[in-house]
Amino acid sequence: MIPRYTPSDFSELWSSRTRYAAWLEVELAACEAMERAGLVPNGTALAIRSRDIKLDPERIETIEQTTKHDVIAFLTHVEELAGEPARFLHMGMTSSDVLDSSFALLLVRATDRISVRLDRYIAALETRVREHRHTPMIGRSHGIHAEPVTFGVVLAGHLAEAKRGRARLFAARQEIAVGKIAGAVGTYAHLSPAIEADALGQLGLRPETVSTQVVARDRHAAYFAALGLLAAGIERLATNVRHWQRNEVGEAEEKFTAGQKGSSAMPHKRNPIASENLCGLARVVRAAITPALENVALWHERDISHSSVERMIAPDATATIAFMLDRAASLVEGLVVYPEAMKRNLDRTGELFFSEAVMLEMVKKGRPRQRAYELVQKSAMRAFHGDGRFRDNLRSDADVLAILKPEEIDACFDMKHALRHVDAIVDRALVEP
Amino acid sequence: MIPRYTPSDFSELWSSRTRYAAWLEVELAACEAMERAGLVPNGTALAIRSRDIKLDPERIETIEQTTKHDVIAFLTHVEELAGEPARFLHMGMTSSDVLDSSFALLLVRATDRISVRLDRYIAALETRVREHRHTPMIGRSHGIHAEPVTFGVVLAGHLAEAKRGRARLFAARQEIAVGKIAGAVGTYAHLSPAIEADALGQLGLRPETVSTQVVARDRHAAYFAALGLLAAGIERLATNVRHWQRNEVGEAEEKFTAGQKGSSAMPHKRNPIASENLCGLARVVRAAITPALENVALWHERDISHSSVERMIAPDATATIAFMLDRAASLVEGLVVYPEAMKRNLDRTGELFFSEAVMLEMVKKGRPRQRAYELVQKSAMRAFHGDGRFRDNLRSDADVLAILKPEEIDACFDMKHALRHVDAIVDRALVEP
Amino acid sequence: MIPRYTPSDFSELWSSRTRYAAWLEVELAACEAMERAGLVPNGTALAIRSRDIKLDPERIETIEQTTKHDVIAFLTHVEELAGEPARFLHMGMTSSDVLDSSFALLLVRATDRISVRLDRYIAALETRVREHRHTPMIGRSHGIHAEPVTFGVVLAGHLAEAKRGRARLFAARQEIAVGKIAGAVGTYAHLSPAIEADALGQLGLRPETVSTQVVARDRHAAYFAALGLLAAGIERLATNVRHWQRNEVGEAEEKFTAGQKGSSAMPHKRNPIASENLCGLARVVRAAITPALENVALWHERDISHSSVERMIAPDATATIAFMLDRAASLVEGLVVYPEAMKRNLDRTGELFFSEAVMLEMVKKGRPRQRAYELVQKSAMRAFHGDGRFRDNLRSDADVLAILKPEEIDACFDMKHALRHVDAIVDRALVEP
Amino acid sequence: MIPRYTPSDFSELWSSRTRYAAWLEVELAACEAMERAGLVPNGTALAIRSRDIKLDPERIETIEQTTKHDVIAFLTHVEELAGEPARFLHMGMTSSDVLDSSFALLLVRATDRISVRLDRYIAALETRVREHRHTPMIGRSHGIHAEPVTFGVVLAGHLAEAKRGRARLFAARQEIAVGKIAGAVGTYAHLSPAIEADALGQLGLRPETVSTQVVARDRHAAYFAALGLLAAGIERLATNVRHWQRNEVGEAEEKFTAGQKGSSAMPHKRNPIASENLCGLARVVRAAITPALENVALWHERDISHSSVERMIAPDATATIAFMLDRAASLVEGLVVYPEAMKRNLDRTGELFFSEAVMLEMVKKGRPRQRAYELVQKSAMRAFHGDGRFRDNLRSDADVLAILKPEEIDACFDMKHALRHVDAIVDRALVEP
Repeated sequence: MIPRYTPSDFSELWSSRTRYAAWLEVELAACEAMERAGLVPNGTALAIRSRDIKLDPERIETIEQTTKHDVIAFLTHVEELAGEPARFLHMGMTSSDVLDSSFALLLVRATDRISVRLDRYIAALETRVREHRHTPMIGRSHGIHAEPVTFGVVLAGHLAEAKRGRARLFAARQEIAVGKIAGAVGTYAHLSPAIEADALGQLGLRPETVSTQVVARDRHAAYFAALGLLAAGIERLATNVRHWQRNEVGEAEEKFTAGQKGSSAMPHKRNPIASENLCGLARVVRAAITPALENVALWHERDISHSSVERMIAPDATATIAFMLDRAASLVEGLVVYPEAMKRNLDRTGELFFSEAVMLEMVKKGRPRQRAYELVQKSAMRAFHGDGRFRDNLRSDADVLAILKPEEIDACFDMKHALRHVDAIVDRALVEP
Repeated sequence: MIPRYTPSDFSELWSSRTRYAAWLEVELAACEAMERAGLVPNGTALAIRSRDIKLDPERIETIEQTTKHDVIAFLTHVEELAGEPARFLHMGMTSSDVLDSSFALLLVRATDRISVRLDRYIAALETRVREHRHTPMIGRSHGIHAEPVTFGVVLAGHLAEAKRGRARLFAARQEIAVGKIAGAVGTYAHLSPAIEADALGQLGLRPETVSTQVVARDRHAAYFAALGLLAAGIERLATNVRHWQRNEVGEAEEKFTAGQKGSSAMPHKRNPIASENLCGLARVVRAAITPALENVALWHERDISHSSVERMIAPDATATIAFMLDRAASLVEGLVVYPEAMKRNLDRTGELFFSEAVMLEMVKKGRPRQRAYELVQKSAMRAFHGDGRFRDNLRSDADVLAILKPEEIDACFDMKHALRHVDAIVDRALVEP
Repeated sequence: MIPRYTPSDFSELWSSRTRYAAWLEVELAACEAMERAGLVPNGTALAIRSRDIKLDPERIETIEQTTKHDVIAFLTHVEELAGEPARFLHMGMTSSDVLDSSFALLLVRATDRISVRLDRYIAALETRVREHRHTPMIGRSHGIHAEPVTFGVVLAGHLAEAKRGRARLFAARQEIAVGKIAGAVGTYAHLSPAIEADALGQLGLRPETVSTQVVARDRHAAYFAALGLLAAGIERLATNVRHWQRNEVGEAEEKFTAGQKGSSAMPHKRNPIASENLCGLARVVRAAITPALENVALWHERDISHSSVERMIAPDATATIAFMLDRAASLVEGLVVYPEAMKRNLDRTGELFFSEAVMLEMVKKGRPRQRAYELVQKSAMRAFHGDGRFRDNLRSDADVLAILKPEEIDACFDMKHALRHVDAIVDRALVEP
Repeated sequence: MIPRYTPSDFSELWSSRTRYAAWLEVELAACEAMERAGLVPNGTALAIRSRDIKLDPERIETIEQTTKHDVIAFLTHVEELAGEPARFLHMGMTSSDVLDSSFALLLVRATDRISVRLDRYIAALETRVREHRHTPMIGRSHGIHAEPVTFGVVLAGHLAEAKRGRARLFAARQEIAVGKIAGAVGTYAHLSPAIEADALGQLGLRPETVSTQVVARDRHAAYFAALGLLAAGIERLATNVRHWQRNEVGEAEEKFTAGQKGSSAMPHKRNPIASENLCGLARVVRAAITPALENVALWHERDISHSSVERMIAPDATATIAFMLDRAASLVEGLVVYPEAMKRNLDRTGELFFSEAVMLEMVKKGRPRQRAYELVQKSAMRAFHGDGRFRDNLRSDADVLAILKPEEIDACFDMKHALRHVDAIVDRALVEP
C-alpha cells in the first residue's frame, strides 16, 4: 500500500487507529453478549463505551515491545484508559477471537468500498456500451482483421466480465464475513456458541462453522482469488485500450488532460499510461493469491505464519484493486473514441472480412467446403498482396462465377446483415445483474 | 498429466480420441440446431450419426501438418469418413465455436468426476468425525500444546473446509458450463443467438453472454482457482497427518499395507508418504492459477496464447486434483488413530492447559487480568521447567490461595466441562450441505 | 509434457526407460567406487555391466505395487536380471542417493539439449541483427511513435537478453550438476566422502556440500527460475512479433507455409500463431518456479513432497523451453521483414520524432527547457491533429523563428545523425559472450 | 513495506526524499559527463551542487498533479531551486535514463544492506555449527526417526544454503548494477555511448548492452528470483525450528525474552513466533517473482506497466528480506539448544536407527539384500510395537543368529562410527566462500 496507489479511504481503513478501533468493537460486542449470558456484570461494555476512550496506537506499540504480543498490549492500554470495567473484556477469549473477527470487519468494509467502485466502473461501461452499440469497428483475432463487430459489443464483453467479477466479489464477501469468538482452540471452553452468535451477529458477521484458534484461511484465499480475477478483467480492458491508442490503430485513446505531458523528451506524445499502469497493478493484485493459498495449511490448531502475509497483502490487494477500479472507471468514462478511425480501419482490408459469407454461399450452392475455401482464399490472397480488390477479384474469377452470379456475390457484402444481432448481444450484457 | 498421478478415467477423458469425439458432438448439435432453423438440409446430422464414424486422431494430426490448423484438419477427416453430408457441418461457425464448446463439455465432465471423488472424501471425513467426536486430544497452536480438543472436532474442521470446497467447485462448474456458437467474432454473422441456444442447450451448456471469438477466459481462471483452493485444503489435512505420524507425536498414521517398505535402508520406517505426496501435488494444482489468470487478457477478439496453456493445465490440474481426492479419501478412510497416544500427549503438560480456566476464575473473583495472568504464569512456568505439577504449584502458592480455595482450583481442572460444546461444533459441520 | 509441445529427444529423456537406466548408471558408478575403496568385491560392477541387462519399466512398476517403494522395486528387478552380483549394489546407500544423483544426470542432459537450442536461437538473432542493423523503423514507447531506431537494434536487444539467459542457464547447470551418495541422512554412515567424490566424479557431478537425505532443493528452484527467465525473454520477442504482424503495422510477419490455413472461417487471415503460442508456453514454464520454491523447505532431513512436483515440472519445464527455443529460432530465421512498411510507418507521424532535436536546439540557444517544450508541443499537436506538417508548422511559427533560423530547424531533421550510434550498439550485443 | 517489517534504513532508502536525491545524482553525473564531452557549459553541475538544494517531495508531487509526469515535475522543481544552470540538466535524455539509472543505484544500495545482514546470518550459523558439530541428534526423514546426525551438521546444511544464497545475491547485484543514459529509445540520438559510460561509471554502474527506452527487465526478474531463493532458504530453517520447538520434540527453541507473553489466554505457552513469522514473510518475498517476470515482455521500446509493479515490490521485497535476515540471524544467535532432549529423542526408538548397519552386515556375510531386509524388519517392527528392544530381538532371533554372532550384532550399534565423517561435512560448509 503505497500512497501513489492508495485511495484515501483505504489509508484510513488500514491505519493502526482503525485497526485498534475494530478490536475494541469486537471486544465490546463480545462483552455485551457475555453480559446477556450472565458471564460478565451488566453494564460493563456501556461503562467503557461511555468513557469514549481514544486509543493511542503508539502507546500500544510501546507496550508491545515488552510483551511481544499485540493483543495483550492492546488490552493493557484499554485498561489504562477505561480502568476497572476493562478487566472484564476478553473473558475466556483468545487473541485470535479479536484479531480474526476484526479482520473480517475490515475486509467486509474494504469489500463494500470496492463494490461501490466496481458499480461505478460497471455504470461507465453501460453508458459507453449504449453509446457505441452501433459504432462499427473491425473485429480482430490474433491482431489480424477478422470480421466486423461494433465498439459497443466489444465494451459489452468487458461489461459482462465486470458483472461476473461483481458476482464473484459478492460470493467472496460472504466467505470472509465470518468471525469467531470461540476461545483458544475453538472449543468455547470458557464461552458458548450462543455468545459467539450473539456477538458476531451484532457485528454483521457469521460464526465460523468449525474454528481452530482461527477462522479457516481457505476463506481468505478465495477472497484474494476473487480480487485477482477482477484485476485480470481490468487488465484485459486496459490491454485493449493500449492497442486502440497505438498510432497505427488510433481508434480510441485515454483522455489527455490540459497540462499533461506525455514525455520529457517528445512533446507530441500522448501515451496510454493509465492503461499501462492498470496492467502493472493487475500483476500486483494477482500476486496476492499464491501467498494466500500458502497460508491455508496452518499447522494443527493454527500457526501465525499467515499473519505477516495478511498484514501486507490485505491492505495492498484491497487498496490497489480499489485504485484500479477508480482509474478504470475514469478511463472508460473519459475514453475518447474515434468512430471515423474505426471506419478507416474497417476499410483497410477492402471487405476481405466478407470472405466467409462468400464461402458459405458457395457451400449452400452445393460446393464442398474445402473447394469453396480455396476459391475464396485465391481472391483474398491476391487482394491481400495488393492485386485488385477482393470483391472485384471474385467477380472476375471464372471458377467463382461458375458458382455464384455477380449479384449473389454482391449480396454477401452486407455490413448491416453482418451486424444484425448486435442489439441482442448488447442487451444480454445490459440486463445481466 | 503423468501416468503416476492420473486416474484412468482422466487419461481417457483427455485423450485425443475423446477430444475429437467432443468436437464432433458439438458439430452435430450445431448442425441439428441449424436444421431446425432451416439453414441446413434436414437429416444431415442424422446421416452422419448413422455412419457411426470412427475418428482417427493420427490421421487428423497428419492432415494438420499441412494445414497447420487443427479444426480444418478435423473437418477434412470427417468429410473423408462421412462423405457428402459433412459438407454442411461447421456452417457459419469458427474453430473456437467447436473448441470452446467442446472444452466446456470436457471440463464439465472432468468436474463431475472430481465431484464424485470429493463426495467420497467428504463421506470419509464424516465417518471419522462421527467416530472420534469424543476422542480427546491436545489442541496445538504454534506447535505448542494449548487446550484440549477432540480428534472429531479437528476432522470436522477439515470436513467443513471440504464442503466449502464443494460449494466453490459447484460455482466454478457453473462458470465454465458455457459454450459459444457465435461465429468468427461472436456476432452470429452467419448464425443466430437462437441456433446457439438450441445447440448448446442440447449439450447441457449455456451460451456466453458476450463472446469474442472465444468464451471469456476469466471463467476458466475462476475454475482453476477453485481447484487450487480444494488442493490447499487437502494440503492442510495432509500436513496435519504428517505431524500426527511423527515418532514423537504418534497420534495417527497412514495405513501401512502388507509388503510396503518404508525405506530401502531402514526397515523399521513407516513414513507418511501419501500425505507428503498430497502436499507436493497441491503445489502443482495451485500452480495452474497464475497462468490461467495470465490467459484472461487476450488481445481484441482473441489471441491463441491461452490454448497451449490450457492444453497443459486443464488435464494436469483436473487429473491431479482427482488423484489427490482419491488418495485423500483413502488416507482418511484408512487412517490408523491412536487415542491412547492422544491421551498420553494430553497428559504431557500436566494439565497446564487448564491455566486459562484458573486465570479466569481469579478474574471472576475480582483480580485484574494482568495480575491473574502473572500468578498463573508463575506456577505454569515452574511446572514447564519440571518443578512440580501445575495444579500442585497453584495449591501451594500463597498468593493464589489468597484468591482461590483449593477446591475452587480443582474445579478448574475439568476436561468434560472444557469439551462440553464439542457436539454442537461437530454437528454444525455434519449438517452443512 | 504433452506430445504437441515435446521435442522427441525430451520424450526419450524423460521416459521411464531412460530414468531407470540413469538409476543403474548411478548404482554402477557407486559400486565401482566402493570396489576401489575395498567395500565391495572387485569386478562386481563389471559382472553386471557384462550381462547387458534390459530393464523392463513395467516389471518394476508391477513390483512397486507391492513394495510401494520405487527404488526397492528397481533393485529387486535388477537382481532378477543380473543375479548374485546385484546383491552388492546400493550397499550403504539410500534411495535418494540414486534418485537425486540420477535426477542431476537427467537435468544436466536436459540442460545441454536446451543449450544447443539456445545457441541456435542466438545464432538466428545474430544473423538477423547483422542483416537489419541499418533498416530504420520507428521506435515506440507506450505503443506510440517515439524516435527512430533500426530493426537490427531492436533484435540486438533480444540478442543481448538471450545471451544473458545463456549465462544464467550455465550458472543454473552448475547449481544442479550435484549429486549425493551419502546414505540415509547424509552422514556417510556406511560410506565415505571419498567414495562419493569418486562415484559422482565419474558421472560428471559434484557432491552436495552438506546433504540431508537429499540434495538441497534451493538448487532446483534456482534452476527453474533460470528457465522461467529464458521463457520470459522469448515472450518479449514473441509479443513484439505479434505487434509487428498486426494489419495496421505490418512490419514483419511469421513465415506462412504453403497449405497453411489461418482460419476455418476466414481464408485471408495470416495469424502470428507461433508467437502467440510462445507467449502461452512462457506462462507454463514460469509456472514451475513457485512450486519449485515451495519445495525448498523440506522437513528435517527431508520429506518426499518435492518428488511429485519434480516428476511433473522437470519434464514439463525443460521440454517446453526446448520446444519454445526451437520454435523461437524458426520464428526468427523465417521472419518475413517488410522494410518498406517500416519506412511507411516512420513517415506516418510526419517527422514528429525530430521534436526533441528541435527542442534541444532551442535550449542550446539559451531558452528555458519548459518554454522550448511548449513551443515544440504547439507545432507537434497541430500536426498530430492533421493541421499542417510538423516541420512546416515550426517554420511558420514566429515564436520559433525568433529562436531558430529555418535552416537550423531543417538541420534538426536528420535521420542519419539520429542513427549514428547504431553500429556501436549492435556490435556490443554481437561481441558479448 | 509496512513499518512492522521494515528496517529503518530501508524506510529511508525507499523514501521519496532518497528517490529524488538519487534522480539528482544521476542528472548531475550525466551533466558532468556532458560537460567533459563539450555538450554543456563547463561548471554547470558544480554550480548546481554548490547551491546545496533541498528537494521538496511534496512540491514535486504538487507539480506532477498538473503535468502527470513525474520527471518533468522533478526537473521543474530543480529549476525552481537551482535556477538558470538547471536548464542544462537532462539534455538529450529521457525520463527513463534518470529513473532506471537511479533505480539501479537504489537497488544496489538495498542489496549491499541485504548483504551485510546476510553476512551476519551466515556468521551466526557458523558459530552455532562450530558449537554443535558433535551434538548428536536423530536425523528424520518424513518426520520419522532415521539415523543419527549432529545438530552441527544440520545447521551446516543451512549454512551451505545461505552461502549459495549469497553467491546468487552477488550475481543478481551484477545483473541490476546497470543503468542507461541513451535517450528516448536507446539510440543516443542526442548523446553518445561515451557520455553514458562516463556518467554511469561515476555512479558505479555499467551501461545496458542494448537499451530500449529502459534497461531490460529480465535483469530485475533475475534479481527478485535471487531474493525469493534467499527467503525460501530461511523458510527451511524456520520450519525446522518450529519442529524442534514442538512440545513433543523440545530440542531447541527460540529465545524467550523477559516480559514476553506467549498467549493472551495461556500463560505457559512459549511459541516459535519468530520462525512462523519468517515462514509467512518468505511467501511475501517469493510473491514478487511472478509480477517481476510478467514485467519482462514490455511492448516495443517499452511500456510503463513495470513501473507500478516495481514501486511496490522493490521496497517490499528488499525491506522484507532484510528484516527476515535480521530476524533469522537473531533467531540463530539466540536459539536455545537442548542437547539432552536430543539425546532423549535419539533413545526413543531404542537404537532402531542401527538397523541398516545390521542389514549391511548380513549382506556382507553373503545374504541377499531382500532376505536381510526382512530379517531386520521383523525385529524392528516388534520393537516398534513395544515388543522388546530391537537389539535384544535380533540377539534372540535364531534366523539372525544363523548369520551374525551376538558380538557382531553389538558391533553394529556404534554411534561414534556412525558419526565419524561429521567433521569432514561440517568443514566443507565452513570453508565454502
